[in-house]
Amino acid sequence: MRAYRLMEFGRIDGIVVTDRPMPEPGPTEILIKVHAASINRRDIMLLEQTYPRPAVPAVVPLSDGAGEVLAVGARVTRFKVGDRVTGNYWPRWRDGRLADDQLDQLGCTLDGMASEYAVLDEQWAVRVPQHLSWPEAASLSCAGVTAWNAVAGCAAGAPGRTVLTLGAGDVSLFAVQFAKMMGCQVIVTTSRDSKADKLKSLGADHVINYLSTPQWGTAVRDLTGGQGADLVVETVGPETIEQSIAACARHAEIVLLIWKSPGRPDLVIPGDVYGPKLATLRRIFVGSRVDLEAMIKAIATNGTRPVIDRVFPFHQLHDAYRYFQDTSRFGKVAITMD
Amino acid sequence: MRAYRLMEFGRIDGIVVTDRPMPEPGPTEILIKVHAASINRRDIMLLEQTYPRPAVPAVVPLSDGAGEVLAVGARVTRFKVGDRVTGNYWPRWRDGRLADDQLDQLGCTLDGMASEYAVLDEQWAVRVPQHLSWPEAASLSCAGVTAWNAVAGCAAGAPGRTVLTLGAGDVSLFAVQFAKMMGCQVIVTTSRDSKADKLKSLGADHVINYLSTPQWGTAVRDLTGGQGADLVVETVGPETIEQSIAACARHAEIVLLIWKSPGRPDLVIPGDVYGPKLATLRRIFVGSRVDLEAMIKAIATNGTRPVIDRVFPFHQLHDAYRYFQDTSRFGKVAITMD
Amino acid sequence: MRAYRLMEFGRIDGIVVTDRPMPEPGPTEILIKVHAASINRRDIMLLEQTYPRPAVPAVVPLSDGAGEVLAVGARVTRFKVGDRVTGNYWPRWRDGRLADDQLDQLGCTLDGMASEYAVLDEQWAVRVPQHLSWPEAASLSCAGVTAWNAVAGCAAGAPGRTVLTLGAGDVSLFAVQFAKMMGCQVIVTTSRDSKADKLKSLGADHVINYLSTPQWGTAVRDLTGGQGADLVVETVGPETIEQSIAACARHAEIVLLIWKSPGRPDLVIPGDVYGPKLATLRRIFVGSRVDLEAMIKAIATNGTRPVIDRVFPFHQLHDAYRYFQDTSRFGKVAITMD
Amino acid sequence: MRAYRLMEFGRIDGIVVTDRPMPEPGPTEILIKVHAASINRRDIMLLEQTYPRPAVPAVVPLSDGAGEVLAVGARVTRFKVGDRVTGNYWPRWRDGRLADDQLDQLGCTLDGMASEYAVLDEQWAVRVPQHLSWPEAASLSCAGVTAWNAVAGCAAGAPGRTVLTLGAGDVSLFAVQFAKMMGCQVIVTTSRDSKADKLKSLGADHVINYLSTPQWGTAVRDLTGGQGADLVVETVGPETIEQSIAACARHAEIVLLIWKSPGRPDLVIPGDVYGPKLATLRRIFVGSRVDLEAMIKAIATNGTRPVIDRVFPFHQLHDAYRYFQDTSRFGKVAITMD
Repeated sequence: MRAYRLMEFGRIDGIVVTDRPMPEPGPTEILIKVHAASINRRDIMLLEQTYPRPAVPAVVPLSDGAGEVLAVGARVTRFKVGDRVTGNYWPRWRDGRLADDQLDQLGCTLDGMASEYAVLDEQWAVRVPQHLSWPEAASLSCAGVTAWNAVAGCAAGAPGRTVLTLGAGDVSLFAVQFAKMMGCQVIVTTSRDSKADKLKSLGADHVINYLSTPQWGTAVRDLTGGQGADLVVETVGPETIEQSIAACARHAEIVLLIWKSPGRPDLVIPGDVYGPKLATLRRIFVGSRVDLEAMIKAIATNGTRPVIDRVFPFHQLHDAYRYFQDTSRFGKVAITMD
Repeated sequence: MRAYRLMEFGRIDGIVVTDRPMPEPGPTEILIKVHAASINRRDIMLLEQTYPRPAVPAVVPLSDGAGEVLAVGARVTRFKVGDRVTGNYWPRWRDGRLADDQLDQLGCTLDGMASEYAVLDEQWAVRVPQHLSWPEAASLSCAGVTAWNAVAGCAAGAPGRTVLTLGAGDVSLFAVQFAKMMGCQVIVTTSRDSKADKLKSLGADHVINYLSTPQWGTAVRDLTGGQGADLVVETVGPETIEQSIAACARHAEIVLLIWKSPGRPDLVIPGDVYGPKLATLRRIFVGSRVDLEAMIKAIATNGTRPVIDRVFPFHQLHDAYRYFQDTSRFGKVAITMD
Repeated sequence: MRAYRLMEFGRIDGIVVTDRPMPEPGPTEILIKVHAASINRRDIMLLEQTYPRPAVPAVVPLSDGAGEVLAVGARVTRFKVGDRVTGNYWPRWRDGRLADDQLDQLGCTLDGMASEYAVLDEQWAVRVPQHLSWPEAASLSCAGVTAWNAVAGCAAGAPGRTVLTLGAGDVSLFAVQFAKMMGCQVIVTTSRDSKADKLKSLGADHVINYLSTPQWGTAVRDLTGGQGADLVVETVGPETIEQSIAACARHAEIVLLIWKSPGRPDLVIPGDVYGPKLATLRRIFVGSRVDLEAMIKAIATNGTRPVIDRVFPFHQLHDAYRYFQDTSRFGKVAITMD
Repeated sequence: MRAYRLMEFGRIDGIVVTDRPMPEPGPTEILIKVHAASINRRDIMLLEQTYPRPAVPAVVPLSDGAGEVLAVGARVTRFKVGDRVTGNYWPRWRDGRLADDQLDQLGCTLDGMASEYAVLDEQWAVRVPQHLSWPEAASLSCAGVTAWNAVAGCAAGAPGRTVLTLGAGDVSLFAVQFAKMMGCQVIVTTSRDSKADKLKSLGADHVINYLSTPQWGTAVRDLTGGQGADLVVETVGPETIEQSIAACARHAEIVLLIWKSPGRPDLVIPGDVYGPKLATLRRIFVGSRVDLEAMIKAIATNGTRPVIDRVFPFHQLHDAYRYFQDTSRFGKVAITMD
């Protein structure tokens, strides 16, 4: 079976296709025919070695993928042949808080989904909803759960609250969908007017062009009768934190997903802006299997479909990686094994 | 100006219309031209003296009403003439937890809204959304906030969770609306098939006829793949608690609104059903002004409209009271002063 | 090695000592030289078949035991030879919420600690504090964690809050200790004046004799300036729930540990007492490994020692079971293998 | 009666004593014979105009003071003559969240306690415990409630958790007391070895000299078996935030009290240190009347006494202000009117 492996860092060509014997599932494992996988920003960071956890040598990349159970080990009870499944980003983190012995990640320290077949412990996998295509089902684990925990795992995310999310990246698009699913008012920033309509179709109540409105923090307050946003999904970090704080309401919650950037190793919080806000800064890092299951239940209940920008065939993974970094895209970039 | 007053308990005719001089707002008060008011079950209980708090002599009944600010006292800062407002059920309860000196209620220990004009302290009132008619705006304070706190003020009420609400009473209809607004799966019980379609139009995913399905607890579990409901809005009490517990999932939350009924002074919780559920029973009692404001923001954001069954003219208040108890109604019963 | 096994229900003699070959730890397991074990009410219930989960045939009884690691499997990373450990009540429940595949219990569906040696998966065990004797360390898993989650796992358990706990049973004694550790005011009921001094030595601020003060709910309110208790650790159930509710403050939390009793299959909640209290009834069922670890950290930090009433030698397990039911005891009943 | 008034900013002599007629309490007010008042850092900041809220002209300074009720207005129900009381820092903030119309502060926008007599609305005052001297009772409102909300108002502050508090300032001393009251392990930093013993007497488990151990973040982790602190009471801000983050455990909470300092207008959060910690940064700003009452109940229950360093007579307020800034002090600086 063919699988991509990360043989050399720093360049997309360092990901090479390999052909190995078909794996066998162990007693508690399931063998999956992977139908699609998708790329997340963390996969680029892993390649560029800017991700907090280094990838292990020759790892199969991509945390996100979905497929069909082909075979199950003798002691497997959670799945049967034919089930449609995906894996959890942190496969060993089931519930509660992330612990020291749960730091493995698919596509980083454990083989990921850029492969025709994958073997996962049955505890690492969950069922995916019937209404999703394979590329959609392969889009949930990283950006989806991150947005879910940012929006739904947050006291500030309640009906009628104002959620501000930054940009039209993958996490942000999920955040728009989840915030609308929860009855929130949603404001999004973007640099491209061409994306405004798409964001509104997805549910955004207001879209602010942050290039033409560099003081978008004030704009958010203006749009909310002077109150500000109750929840900010901070998908950018050092470049935006000042306006994010300016945008937020007293007692707001700012969910920090990124805390440094090339050339900006620190998050600089301006005291005069921050002091009176009484805002909470919360860090999240994707989520547990129970979080993934809760998100999937919400997606199934509400018929939500992840936004897919483009699907590449398996053999064009390098093109998919390159396309992923195209800032005009709107939605996930997937590969398909079919 | 004309106002109804509760002169004698036990019969609807004990509510009599009076004519008194127009009131003047004090320095921190607002004078309201009431446009509509609505009836809640507690107004019947107050009349029948089965409500936990007794009404004071000659009180103007009805907690729920809405109108326009006609005049403001010298020190009023929250409102101006022309604002559309309603009052809070517990006018002295602003935020946090209900305290001993906050137990006054409109239409019970303080004059309520069955009146052409009303005077409220500016702290007791809140603005109502523009998209609501007067009868709709007059339907928020009691049943609305109760349902809001049951569903949105609850860890169990999150997208994808299953909410079970009992019957097609006013609280239950709001609960359906709020639960759908939050992305939940909603199951409702009713005794009338004729209401099933209306409940579905309102958003209910499933409707169970509790007469034809007396073991509806099992039916709820069946509808949820054996899991059960995550949240039960218990609008009935002694007659239903056993099935409510049977219906719920492990770790579910049951919000208890009623805890006794004529002939059943106790809530009897069957040990064998309850024990393994690890369910939390939570009591709520309408809510604070901050709760009302949050609900109103959610209603405004989502364009939600309370369900109005029928509107009576001011002079037919007695008919409205009688009609309120008609079990075939579906939605609030309001009176209008226009 | 010798181990007791539950061969016949309904009588203490149904627990018989067996001699089997020394077990070998599997790759992820540890072999423990058990030094002490202790009895909990659930062990009596398991014997009498009144516990919600039935024991499997020939199970080694007792959830609570402590000992020294003698050998570790090849893949064990959490422990080394010589570590002092105990097991978790629900060994498969690590963190978050109890799930369907985590319902095994030591001494019930899995072999427990009434044995000279025990083998546990390394994920099922935790280290015990150095300052504890073996019988003390063998007293933590069931009654300890139950009291911990009742008191510390509860919003109502904060410094200055009033905690009411019922009786001088094992959970109640731990509850006194944890509530005092947290700076609460503690009130305890008992039927024996002889225990009042012991309860006060343990930290209780007030002790009420419920035989001479059958309206002890009122007594609790009197002791708290009319407010009532903020948290009730309900260790009894049907016989006491009415007074427990009478004792509690508005917005109190009642943690229900027992929900039926011989002859009383239901929990009867009197509507008139309950209605105005706005109290939450919460069910807990011991706790997760993370809970056990948190409790152990608290015990280690504060030098807390479980109360041991009496220690029997291993061969007198039957006497220990009989003594356990002596209502004059005050503290845990343990057996020792040394 | 004599009262100090803040007539000119920037120098202690700008606070001048005035003699005015004895005030009369209005209908909902109480007249207090002030017995003691105490200084907080915010009083220095108000004088130096570095506090976020500017003081109004000729305000009576000091938020913290305690005294005896001398007279009550006609509609007062909460207090009677002879009651021992103090005022809340934000007198209009009763419960829940701080709102826009609750931003008045004693000693800032409302007359404070540096006065022989004070008039407060009855809603602004609370009773103080009998076991406290007047200077102790005059030490609760600002630093006390701040520390209370930092430690007790925080999920991370539970028995057995590790609390790190910075320095031996007033908030930090209260934080040590409250954290020990709650059964936490407490670590404190200081620059003076002479204070180490005093901090340990107060309950600190470990004291780190941050001058001799500039990498005190590592020291905290070493003292906690590599885990780090669960809660950091960040009393300093820009100069310490890096080490505070380095000190904290995964999922820790950092309570930020100060967010800028002279010459350092920003809080700079180093990305590489912060990223993996998943720590929450929470801002608090003293607290509500309900918080003050809860703290007072905890203090009364546990017999806690605020640390008083030195008491000056009323006429030496200027000396008291000067002494307050002496970094060798350990405890509150009070003035007494007796």
